Amino acid sequence: KGGRLYQLSKAGKLCVPAMNVNDSVTKQKFDNLYCCRESILDGLKRTTDIMFGGKQVVVCGYGEVGKGCCTALKALGAIVCITEIDPICALQACMDGFRVVKLSEVIRQMDVVITCTGNKNVVTREQLDRMKNGCIVCNMGHSNTEIDVASLRSPELTWERVRSQVDHIIWPDGKRVVLLAEGRLLNLSCSTVPTFVLSITATTQALALIELFNAPEGRYKQDVYLLPKKMDEYVASLHLPNFDAHLTELSDEQAKYMGLNKNGPFKPNYYR
Amino acid sequence: KGGRLYQLSKAGKLCVPAMNVNDSVTKQKFDNLYCCRESILDGLKRTTDIMFGGKQVVVCGYGEVGKGCCTALKALGAIVCITEIDPICALQACMDGFRVVKLSEVIRQMDVVITCTGNKNVVTREQLDRMKNGCIVCNMGHSNTEIDVASLRSPELTWERVRSQVDHIIWPDGKRVVLLAEGRLLNLSCSTVPTFVLSITATTQALALIELFNAPEGRYKQDVYLLPKKMDEYVASLHLPNFDAHLTELSDEQAKYMGLNKNGPFKPNYYR
Amino acid sequence: KGGRLYQLSKAGKLCVPAMNVNDSVTKQKFDNLYCCRESILDGLKRTTDIMFGGKQVVVCGYGEVGKGCCTALKALGAIVCITEIDPICALQACMDGFRVVKLSEVIRQMDVVITCTGNKNVVTREQLDRMKNGCIVCNMGHSNTEIDVASLRSPELTWERVRSQVDHIIWPDGKRVVLLAEGRLLNLSCSTVPTFVLSITATTQALALIELFNAPEGRYKQDVYLLPKKMDEYVASLHLPNFDAHLTELSDEQAKYMGLNKNGPFKPNYYR
Amino acid sequence: KGGRLYQLSKAGKLCVPAMNVNDSVTKQKFDNLYCCRESILDGLKRTTDIMFGGKQVVVCGYGEVGKGCCTALKALGAIVCITEIDPICALQACMDGFRVVKLSEVIRQMDVVITCTGNKNVVTREQLDRMKNGCIVCNMGHSNTEIDVASLRSPELTWERVRSQVDHIIWPDGKRVVLLAEGRLLNLSCSTVPTFVLSITATTQALALIELFNAPEGRYKQDVYLLPKKMDEYVASLHLPNFDAHLTELSDEQAKYMGLNKNGPFKPNYYR
Repeated sequence: KGGRLYQLSKAGKLCVPAMNVNDSVTKQKFDNLYCCRESILDGLKRTTDIMFGGKQVVVCGYGEVGKGCCTALKALGAIVCITEIDPICALQACMDGFRVVKLSEVIRQMDVVITCTGNKNVVTREQLDRMKNGCIVCNMGHSNTEIDVASLRSPELTWERVRSQVDHIIWPDGKRVVLLAEGRLLNLSCSTVPTFVLSITATTQALALIELFNAPEGRYKQDVYLLPKKMDEYVASLHLPNFDAHLTELSDEQAKYMGLNKNGPFKPNYYR
Repeated sequence: KGGRLYQLSKAGKLCVPAMNVNDSVTKQKFDNLYCCRESILDGLKRTTDIMFGGKQVVVCGYGEVGKGCCTALKALGAIVCITEIDPICALQACMDGFRVVKLSEVIRQMDVVITCTGNKNVVTREQLDRMKNGCIVCNMGHSNTEIDVASLRSPELTWERVRSQVDHIIWPDGKRVVLLAEGRLLNLSCSTVPTFVLSITATTQALALIELFNAPEGRYKQDVYLLPKKMDEYVASLHLPNFDAHLTELSDEQAKYMGLNKNGPFKPNYYR
Repeated sequence: KGGRLYQLSKAGKLCVPAMNVNDSVTKQKFDNLYCCRESILDGLKRTTDIMFGGKQVVVCGYGEVGKGCCTALKALGAIVCITEIDPICALQACMDGFRVVKLSEVIRQMDVVITCTGNKNVVTREQLDRMKNGCIVCNMGHSNTEIDVASLRSPELTWERVRSQVDHIIWPDGKRVVLLAEGRLLNLSCSTVPTFVLSITATTQALALIELFNAPEGRYKQDVYLLPKKMDEYVASLHLPNFDAHLTELSDEQAKYMGLNKNGPFKPNYYR
Repeated sequence: KGGRLYQLSKAGKLCVPAMNVNDSVTKQKFDNLYCCRESILDGLKRTTDIMFGGKQVVVCGYGEVGKGCCTALKALGAIVCITEIDPICALQACMDGFRVVKLSEVIRQMDVVITCTGNKNVVTREQLDRMKNGCIVCNMGHSNTEIDVASLRSPELTWERVRSQVDHIIWPDGKRVVLLAEGRLLNLSCSTVPTFVLSITATTQALALIELFNAPEGRYKQDVYLLPKKMDEYVASLHLPNFDAHLTELSDEQAKYMGLNKNGPFKPNYYR
């Protein structure tokens, strides 16, 4: 993802120009948000047949993925709280009606724990020890590092595979924690991804490659770039007919008033 | 707002460094979104005592202000559709469950028309002529240009002031259109603004001025800048205690893994 | 309301037939639910200019009025919990995503306390003593008994009228509790009521009176009756054109299959 | 279901007392509403992997099942309209923000058609003929009669089984309609049912049988009865601990004021 590319770039180890497609609007605000809004429900249902109504859920991380998960779960009657390190995202969570807590404060009461931070060891063995019987733990973030699964491969705990992608980890006192996809991404392992969102992401990736390939010598150095806004908008416009959406066109007078080209880009590059 | 500053800058007419505070996260994603989510309801209630349930509403523009208006109105049972010029925002509206239409297609059926585009003549005299009796028209955008109010000051139409900030425009056939605040901003004219959101915006503005004042010679040229991410995060962190929100801190190991300073900034500058 | 009529009837003190209009569908499920969904927001805004986002709210009672209040506040980003005496309503609250608590467990953290139980002394002096500074207390229930306002008219407390319908009750340590409408109904005292909902309720009342007046001798005894379903449906059908709603008609075959008259009633009397 | 029992009773063909468990609160307002809110999403995902965001959906019938379906689909970004024969339910749909239409008016634009009426031939061959390519048709109602599936077993149409429970019906021009579970109940055929809701329903049924078995001679005649309110409340109270819900108890003074027994029943029998 984007973060790794920037680290390579800073370290001077990036030997070609790169497009940070992950942070383009059409990826961040569509794939991450809308796709996860659906796949968190789908992934949990297909693996555990859980009822969402009335469930206590903690979502770790309130970025786009976390926002998608929280929206869907809340809408289906779950009681959701979140954890965050970033004060801006934490404040958004507050304004959206979610309590912002530390994981350790609430872990004992939770029915479901979902990670979407992109970080590692967000759910530790100590916290797994304190979960209640039947608690479901899963990961919607970027790799298999968020839940400390390694700490569960330990002689005092028994693993029982109850279904494909579903393990019961059994404590000596009989307590069971339900681990999904061994801590790998739930949305990739246990649910399907809408072809429509895949099409948006794939189109963005393809356009980025074409741009890098066609760009005149010198336009891009050995650095990380964001997709030009106009291309993001082009990707979106290609997908609008699917919804029978009717776009409004600027009049000449309006375009002049706004200082915009009638064909876009309509927003500054930093707009999200 | 931001757009004007960039026009001045492009034209070489900006003679001091400027901070585009309007596009900082804490302004865009808090003041514009959350404040309008509440003030659209408040402004309409105080002026017209409208019932929201079942009302047909068109919102022109699906930026942060439009998103706030649509969320609130939909939640209270209105049937909302939107107009957009930007395919990215239009696609977001689709995914959020709003039909994307041209104003002319739906104008006859609407009970309420709300503008939040920042543009001019978004609602034209021709469209005002086609509205149904009792239709409410108001503006949540950036000035008094969005509704072509001038076109209504015309001898064949009668204006009747029915209450402070509320005019009935009466057509020769008796049809009445309800114009709020003479097309000026509804949220500033007809509702109050939460002190909490004002505090966020004012803190952001104050920090921007302090930064410009204290900055060493040469840090800022005669150009438009966005607030450094770390300051945005600082503004947010100052407002968290109000909600009894408990922020999680990165461990050393986690900060290293993410390539982040434990005190932030936690996101790249372009993150929204 | 209905309850009082039944008490009179049981006591043999009802000397005429009565219609319990309050428990007819069009009253319970429209006036109580949809009207309160809007007036709780309106009443709080007009009196206190509160921002709803992130506020901790407890709603006492999860009947139709409570459901309306909770829906609206949750939709605008408040964090809502409820109290209930009835296990069925409590279970509905759980499934709808609200924590069910005792008032004393949460009173210290609340920003807003709303009563809608129809009972008395739901908020006691002891609980008022434990509220935090700035807590708003109001009543959406059936009379001025729900909050023990009498207990606040006490020499050690100072009352300060800060605005029409808004009193600050000041404790010796300086703590202020914001009491709205002196504990009377917020929706009647501090907000307007949509004419549409009033029309539904008034039509129901008028039809009940006409039925009682026109009924042949012996149809009604000195007892309490619910409005016949067919009249409830008639009231609803009179109000549908307002929304441009298009009702589907049963075919002969379908009516026969369902055992229904094509003109209704479509549901059994007990259906809600 | 309830309707059939009443028909038998009217015809004098009911030879034992019967409890109409289907219309008890804990069945109608829990199983039908909350269960369908989840199973409509689950059933559609498991069979078609559909993305809900932006989809045009028509739900036929706005009873408890329809309300559950509409709530869930709207929350996930679908654009939902409904059809109804009952003006009360139609008016509820309006107030909840759904357009009330006749099926024929919208059938051409729909991406998904869902029946939950309990009636027959709600979706006719003529309407199936007019659906657009790829339209999904399924049934959440009470039997396999709602969609006229028989009319699709016709020589000019080709059936292609693409997956368990999923048939493509192919028109001569190549148009495909996606029929789920051959028109049988989607929630029973293609999704799982939460054990919690099953427990509520099963407890209600068991209590009804115990009551009928234990009742003293003469309490019940050869007729259809609704479960006594107190039992409904008992069923609910047995399921509250699952959510860590804390019920409030009436004080003596409050019980007397309300004219209630402190242990319930808390509502009249007709309350829903």
